[in-house]
Amino acid sequence: MPSLINRTWKLVARPQGAFKVSDFQWAEEPVPEVGEGQALVRVLFLSLDPTNRGWANSTATYLPPIPLGSVMRGFAVGVVETSKHPALGRGDYVQGMLGWQAYAVVDGAAVTRFDRMPGVPLEAYPAVFSFIGATAYFGVKDILRPAGGETMVVTGAAGAVGSLAGQIGKILGCRVVGIAGSDEKCAWLTGELGFDAAINYKRESVLRRLRQHCPTGIDVIFENVGGEIFDTELSMINERARIALCGLISQYNEGVPPPGPRFFGNVLIKRARLEGFIVLDYAARFPEAFAALGAWMAQGRLHYRTDIVDGLEHAATAINRLFEGANIGKLLVRVSPEPAP
Amino acid sequence: MPSLINRTWKLVARPQGAFKVSDFQWAEEPVPEVGEGQALVRVLFLSLDPTNRGWANSTATYLPPIPLGSVMRGFAVGVVETSKHPALGRGDYVQGMLGWQAYAVVDGAAVTRFDRMPGVPLEAYPAVFSFIGATAYFGVKDILRPAGGETMVVTGAAGAVGSLAGQIGKILGCRVVGIAGSDEKCAWLTGELGFDAAINYKRESVLRRLRQHCPTGIDVIFENVGGEIFDTELSMINERARIALCGLISQYNEGVPPPGPRFFGNVLIKRARLEGFIVLDYAARFPEAFAALGAWMAQGRLHYRTDIVDGLEHAATAINRLFEGANIGKLLVRVSPEPAP
Repeated sequence: MPSLINRTWKLVARPQGAFKVSDFQWAEEPVPEVGEGQALVRVLFLSLDPTNRGWANSTATYLPPIPLGSVMRGFAVGVVETSKHPALGRGDYVQGMLGWQAYAVVDGAAVTRFDRMPGVPLEAYPAVFSFIGATAYFGVKDILRPAGGETMVVTGAAGAVGSLAGQIGKILGCRVVGIAGSDEKCAWLTGELGFDAAINYKRESVLRRLRQHCPTGIDVIFENVGGEIFDTELSMINERARIALCGLISQYNEGVPPPGPRFFGNVLIKRARLEGFIVLDYAARFPEAFAALGAWMAQGRLHYRTDIVDGLEHAATAINRLFEGANIGKLLVRVSPEPAP
Repeated sequence: MPSLINRTWKLVARPQGAFKVSDFQWAEEPVPEVGEGQALVRVLFLSLDPTNRGWANSTATYLPPIPLGSVMRGFAVGVVETSKHPALGRGDYVQGMLGWQAYAVVDGAAVTRFDRMPGVPLEAYPAVFSFIGATAYFGVKDILRPAGGETMVVTGAAGAVGSLAGQIGKILGCRVVGIAGSDEKCAWLTGELGFDAAINYKRESVLRRLRQHCPTGIDVIFENVGGEIFDTELSMINERARIALCGLISQYNEGVPPPGPRFFGNVLIKRARLEGFIVLDYAARFPEAFAALGAWMAQGRLHYRTDIVDGLEHAATAINRLFEGANIGKLLVRVSPEPAP
């Protein structure tokens, strides 16, 4: 049998500022042998996420740096082609860190098998039933723990996580105000997603509009952005506010971390709780999140949107859609067509 | 009976930067009548605290601004001279917001009566068995919740609250590193108080010395200072670090809040929890704190020190000892001699 040829993007340079295509190298090379306990997975959808940027640095974040010359790390869903692991069989769907490549040979324990739910398209798995939905779920339910009637602000609100977090806030009875970067995004938030208000930070005064839409102040913040917008939110927090620090996309492309929020002192004065979280810590509880998300989706109370780029070869440019705010909803790369049912 | 003449310091100007004597006005005037439900209290010890600075601003902190022209707000202990409140009798010791004055006519419900413990000098009450000790106790026990063997860093460590917080950390089994502003303070911390290490930030590199004294990183921070020192601590936090934000004395004299910590992003990466707290919220649980603090003191495991300035007339200058770092332990003004036993 002729050996299967893989297509891969390798990380070959530490990005300075935004990712450049030259930070990656396209390589076509034979797929390695499948060893005992391993499986060969064909990648279907590659997930592009803001956190990828930090992974490419030379310093560790919550994961070790990606070694230069190795396949770019990335979350993806795929289908098992051959398996030498007892828990995985040909045709099984799996998710995990499959990387920026067409095929991944992985340890069986390093991926999670999932069953397709009837009527749920494949793209919903990376967009919702993955660390994306779990981030929104645990960030709101566990970190923010909002009470009904509280006012929630979500930044990066039209992004994959933010859009779900805001909807979960609505389901839990909050007044939800989203901040996003275009009128089209804002229309989606207040339209299909049912946010109470949305602010286009590129066109409007965030402070003036937050004052208008949060007349009793801000009780909970689901923060994906950081920087000046976050500072403005901090200036308006109520006593006992809770802040889930999920992301700081405004500074991921900065070489030196920018100064923190000037209204930091409000955390003290208002007795606020600010908590950083990384969804990997909740892996054991993902089934709880997926069950809740699935039920809400079936009830028509949870919506998602995907921004799909066709072809792995576009991954190295598509990644910057996240930092340009070009995507609405979950940014995915379709690497390989879905198997026929 | 000739009316009793009070001596008072009134706040007459909003301080710009540090307090100036001209922000206050000395006034001698008759003590008001004692109405029903009120008591006349002779002030014994006035407590001077960093938080007083924020109270003097025109904007609310966790308390409303002090109206210009009124007696400067201050915590104090005193003794009841006459009472028209059923729960208070002549000779009773009380603590509360008696203000910068020799006599206070207060609603009985606005002060807390306390019993003297045998062998405990009067100054221990404002220094420990007051909101000071309660701040240290709840900040460590409720907010930080350290496990034995964890590394704790305390800033403002030779101050009233910091010195107690560090000792409570030791009692709970932590390795405790204090940061303070003089060799004398550091010697007190590592000597009488039993801190594992102390760093003189005015003479030493905080980063280098923290790396030396916290070889496994920082698990819990009791923060009184903010600014660059706090940023350096943040750069060294471990996963699941907890930070009790008790004070930000480095910025209380700033008109515009300075930028926040650059290593703010570490709260996210390290899944840290940062929580502001104000001890007034714990008023109902003060007896729990005082019982624990009293037991530790009786066992010789908890020490305190006072810096006593004699005479109310010096209060307006003495307050700046806090911001100059001149005091070791609790800064008090002796307003009136203690009653003979």
